[in-house]
Amino acid sequence: MQLDLIIYDTELLTMEDGGVGYLADAALGIKGDKIAVVGNTEKILAGHQADRLLEGKNLLVMPGLIDAHIHTGIALLRGLAQDISGWMEEGLWPFSRQLDREAREAGTALNIMEAVRNGTTLLADFGSNLEGMVKWHRRIGTRALLSKTINELDSSSEIIPGELYPFDHRKGEEDLAEALTWIEKEELPERISFFLGPQAPDMLSLELLKKIYDLAGKLETGIHMHVAQGEREHRQMRMRYNSRTIPWLAREGLLNSKLNAVHLTEATPEETRLLARSGAGLTVCSGSIGIIDGQVPPLQEFLEVADRAALGSDQAPGNNCNNMFNEMKLTALFNKIRNESPLPLPAWKVLRLATIEAAGCLGLGDKVGSLTPGKFADLITIDLKEINLSPVIRHPLRNLVPNLVYSARGSEVRDVMVAGRFIFRKGRMVTVEEEEILKQADSAAARIMERVDEERLARLSPLYQAQREGKL
Amino acid sequence: MQLDLIIYDTELLTMEDGGVGYLADAALGIKGDKIAVVGNTEKILAGHQADRLLEGKNLLVMPGLIDAHIHTGIALLRGLAQDISGWMEEGLWPFSRQLDREAREAGTALNIMEAVRNGTTLLADFGSNLEGMVKWHRRIGTRALLSKTINELDSSSEIIPGELYPFDHRKGEEDLAEALTWIEKEELPERISFFLGPQAPDMLSLELLKKIYDLAGKLETGIHMHVAQGEREHRQMRMRYNSRTIPWLAREGLLNSKLNAVHLTEATPEETRLLARSGAGLTVCSGSIGIIDGQVPPLQEFLEVADRAALGSDQAPGNNCNNMFNEMKLTALFNKIRNESPLPLPAWKVLRLATIEAAGCLGLGDKVGSLTPGKFADLITIDLKEINLSPVIRHPLRNLVPNLVYSARGSEVRDVMVAGRFIFRKGRMVTVEEEEILKQADSAAARIMERVDEERLARLSPLYQAQREGKL
Repeated sequence: MQLDLIIYDTELLTMEDGGVGYLADAALGIKGDKIAVVGNTEKILAGHQADRLLEGKNLLVMPGLIDAHIHTGIALLRGLAQDISGWMEEGLWPFSRQLDREAREAGTALNIMEAVRNGTTLLADFGSNLEGMVKWHRRIGTRALLSKTINELDSSSEIIPGELYPFDHRKGEEDLAEALTWIEKEELPERISFFLGPQAPDMLSLELLKKIYDLAGKLETGIHMHVAQGEREHRQMRMRYNSRTIPWLAREGLLNSKLNAVHLTEATPEETRLLARSGAGLTVCSGSIGIIDGQVPPLQEFLEVADRAALGSDQAPGNNCNNMFNEMKLTALFNKIRNESPLPLPAWKVLRLATIEAAGCLGLGDKVGSLTPGKFADLITIDLKEINLSPVIRHPLRNLVPNLVYSARGSEVRDVMVAGRFIFRKGRMVTVEEEEILKQADSAAARIMERVDEERLARLSPLYQAQREGKL
Repeated sequence: MQLDLIIYDTELLTMEDGGVGYLADAALGIKGDKIAVVGNTEKILAGHQADRLLEGKNLLVMPGLIDAHIHTGIALLRGLAQDISGWMEEGLWPFSRQLDREAREAGTALNIMEAVRNGTTLLADFGSNLEGMVKWHRRIGTRALLSKTINELDSSSEIIPGELYPFDHRKGEEDLAEALTWIEKEELPERISFFLGPQAPDMLSLELLKKIYDLAGKLETGIHMHVAQGEREHRQMRMRYNSRTIPWLAREGLLNSKLNAVHLTEATPEETRLLARSGAGLTVCSGSIGIIDGQVPPLQEFLEVADRAALGSDQAPGNNCNNMFNEMKLTALFNKIRNESPLPLPAWKVLRLATIEAAGCLGLGDKVGSLTPGKFADLITIDLKEINLSPVIRHPLRNLVPNLVYSARGSEVRDVMVAGRFIFRKGRMVTVEEEEILKQADSAAARIMERVDEERLARLSPLYQAQREGKL
């Protein structure tokens, strides 16, 4: 077969056969946007021609990483809301209420570029500026599963921490209408797809939530929703429905395989198992939840029941990076600490959670997540000459996978390909000018910060006081 | 004053005044191996001449990071002993018993280079090949506080997991003699100094341990020792002395300000406080202990009583990186999780634990750890244009310090200076050829791996079985 590209004399992690699928002396051939062939270099070079040959010595080729939950739209607020209680209301909102579409778009571009540089090929991106998200995922070339934030929070009235959020039904309907406009567009590339994104059970009415589930069924798409994400949410749920979130979702018929639930930080083990048994997926965000709440999401309880789980980097204002190498490492380590044992979540497992199992969780298991002929050529190469992966030992025990998880920083990623196209090559972005995106982020951030009400910030955020004390 | 170098138009974290000591529009002047002046750019340029001027726009200048506990000598075994129980006996020893002096030296060179690339300027390096350690810290140009491993473990007889270690008194005396030879050498540069390094209370006789403490007093040096590092140690202590480690050290008069104790993983809160009250220092190794034991060392209990604490990266076979940015982040996050609260160990505090407070813990508080005139010019620059530190926000709330701790990977380090000399400049090693050190590590590792008894490994290490199952 005439191929477009063969990467040869390389090592692969295919992620097939329930493990990492390590192959030495390997080659991988690409035709169009798909993986055509995977196997031994000698055999593949003997049986195939290609327009382009790339030698892959000292590289490791593996599926692109999947960030199953990210809010690129708030990336400009990186590092403004950690080490405090009340992350959302006291940390995030004084800044995020100032974000306009342009600032969200600048954040989206910045955050996607950060993700790509760290080996992410697919982002399940959740935010209010869907237009900006579509624009930058298209332009940069990432695969994206986009969700427009749908909530009924009334932006015209001040939200008072601790009080029941006032709902604005028109706002919710407008959000949904905007989401539907984009889902119905036909000229988008295949790699841009959509889930419906009700923000959280406490942030919109039951009526609208049910309507969204019905639509997801008709449109054959999924639901991407924060669930049981904090005590703040449960306070709202108790005040509004006199119930905790997950039992309430079950009672209302909203726990099912359409749902990809994010966080579950406040779920009891029984609630987690209830959700897992329903066929719903779970995305955990170790870094962000560790910083925001000092908690470890109940991934292990979930995995006891089901395997539709994935990892997400969440957001920059309280993580503070969007790097799936960081998420893999933190997920492994946090779960070891939670169990006071070195055994939970070994390296191979978290690598699967960031690739093949994430793809399954997002309903894209037949399209991406492994180096399998017929799947899209979404892959990354890792520079094995990087010092923190050295020495590479292949016998009698391979150290590649543990070092990828526990030592790699993300900066070892040399190339990123999505659907057969390099979007990052030899350490440089291919599709966009990095400098421009950085400048755009800087100037948008400066503009937004001028609008922040400093008195309000001083009143709300303990970080403002920390800064006065010379700690920032 | 005529200076050698002024870095101007930059931002500084001096780490002075109990916080991070942030200075904008700043400059820093160096004369010889010392910091001569720190302050406002305009004033410093008006009052001083310098042979060399460096513009520091878009850089952050801060003290070099301090790795207060590292075993560079076993770096070749990176990634061979995680995700299992019995890290030392079942994971490490099947490989480490094959390490010869040459292999340890190759690991030392590799590990120091990794540390430097990630912004470390001072390493408290602990290992058996003191000659190799001196050689490479001299050559690369790092500041080093070296400890020769002193133990009485009999290398001629097989150590059987779970049984009392047989002691070889001659071996202990030989180790000590070698340590003393180096401590007494006079031609070493000022930046190479020594602590005595009894490996652990269970690994040498009380008699030798007391002799070492006496010598430390006479030589005006300190003791660097693993203390309460695991259940394995306490089993040995119970079998030999019918006591737990810390009460035993107290009873024998070995808890005092000479001691820098490492780990305390198995210490009770009362034992930790007992150690802290004695004036001893504590170094915690969050990454390594998280991976090896799934535990969080009792840093907070220690800090309630005393502030002589520091962070260490420990070793590559079970961390698996030696990167103080990683240690700062993990220390902050693990302690939040341990307390189920976002408040413990905020960014500014872990940054201090890796700089000024570490210096104090190691008895070098008057020499390094802050950007203070009169101290050695041990500093690093951070590239603020790196995407994961972007955007840099300076008003109304600075995000520099949180992003350094929670988002930086180590790859943002652009320059590293020790005692006024750049040893890493614009992302390249200055003093050594990186390629050569990597090659030397690869070939030494390959040589050692050939000697590993594969049958013994298969019997001992669960990782060998994991590899057969396609998980490595």
